[in-house]
Amino acid sequence: MPKIGVILSGCGVKDGSEIHEATLLLLAIDKAGAQAACFAPNKEQAEVVDHVSGRTVRERRNVLVESARLARGEIRDLSEAKVSELDAVILPGGFGAAKNLSSFAEEGAQCQVDPEVARVLRGMRQAGKPIGAACIAPVVLARLFAGDKPLVTIGSDQATARAIESMGARHENAPVTGVVVDPQLRLATTPCYMLATRISQVAEGMDALVKAVLEMAAATAKK
Amino acid sequence: MPKIGVILSGCGVKDGSEIHEATLLLLAIDKAGAQAACFAPNKEQAEVVDHVSGRTVRERRNVLVESARLARGEIRDLSEAKVSELDAVILPGGFGAAKNLSSFAEEGAQCQVDPEVARVLRGMRQAGKPIGAACIAPVVLARLFAGDKPLVTIGSDQATARAIESMGARHENAPVTGVVVDPQLRLATTPCYMLATRISQVAEGMDALVKAVLEMAAATAKK
Repeated sequence: MPKIGVILSGCGVKDGSEIHEATLLLLAIDKAGAQAACFAPNKEQAEVVDHVSGRTVRERRNVLVESARLARGEIRDLSEAKVSELDAVILPGGFGAAKNLSSFAEEGAQCQVDPEVARVLRGMRQAGKPIGAACIAPVVLARLFAGDKPLVTIGSDQATARAIESMGARHENAPVTGVVVDPQLRLATTPCYMLATRISQVAEGMDALVKAVLEMAAATAKK
Repeated sequence: MPKIGVILSGCGVKDGSEIHEATLLLLAIDKAGAQAACFAPNKEQAEVVDHVSGRTVRERRNVLVESARLARGEIRDLSEAKVSELDAVILPGGFGAAKNLSSFAEEGAQCQVDPEVARVLRGMRQAGKPIGAACIAPVVLARLFAGDKPLVTIGSDQATARAIESMGARHENAPVTGVVVDPQLRLATTPCYMLATRISQVAEGMDALVKAVLEMAAATAKK
């Protein structure tokens, strides 16, 4: 049974992992006959946002502790993740990918990637194992693998697409449930809530993303 | 398009709504061609639990504000919910149903039900509109409608089943994706994570719950 690492970034679209995307990713993994292993960086969130008012509040929350809500407690510190135990890694979206896994929300094309996220994703890349990302999370791949001109999609948002291209990556527009694959770098990306207006579109996109990632993982395993 | 009120109780299995159940309920509603309207009581959570350690922490969180994470901000104070605007109401599970929507976790069969939850559910009952509940949430229906001997399931947990019967309700064992219907009171209940070991079982149970609730809602509308 292939094991897919899921890197979470908190719990809530405005300051962490987008909840529907993370949940429907776990569902897609289960339905595909694979196993999910959840991880998150053990550090303070960049900010905490009141999801009713949309305002940042003076509160401190830990990315790992909040992500544990999504994983029903079955989660490990990302610093414990070993590339050798995983067949693939997938990042759901939500602003946490741009605030906690990277600083894209604040710094755009000049963003930094969290060191543990960078370690795991670079390790997967070196091992030839596939990486998937949804919604805004592809910006992390664009930044990290810029030197290799990765091909990704975040849907069709022009400002984000331009930022991705200014990092040195390539952006391809995709429809809401479409998946863009970079066969060379073994990346698969899909827009989810960058474009979705219905939760069932997110479910469909996640099914397609997991399928694309597992196909690449099977090809890696055969080598 | 039928409109289903979803009553949330926070965001996280140990102190709020179970996240997979709430998300997969919203997915099931969308797939069934219905519309979801999320609500939560605007009050402090009974407690805040660290989902890594399982320990209660000294922190204050608001049920409505945390539930908004699940609803991507599209949520209203339960006190604004009108029975006339809804065709059905469904409660997902998670300890929030037993800590914030009722005091079942603390007081068992002698529990109190939140006044706004009681107002909305009694109103639905009086209007002959169906109510669904998953996981531990059926205890709220058992307590509220005890005088009418409601028939519910929480799966097969004997201690909880006994508590439900000692309230005056009837409990029927059900398999993980089974739905128990009380046609007289127009209630439908399903075990979800009271029994589920895989997220895909929760998805299947929620699809079946929404189907049962919508069938009753259609019958109500024909009258």
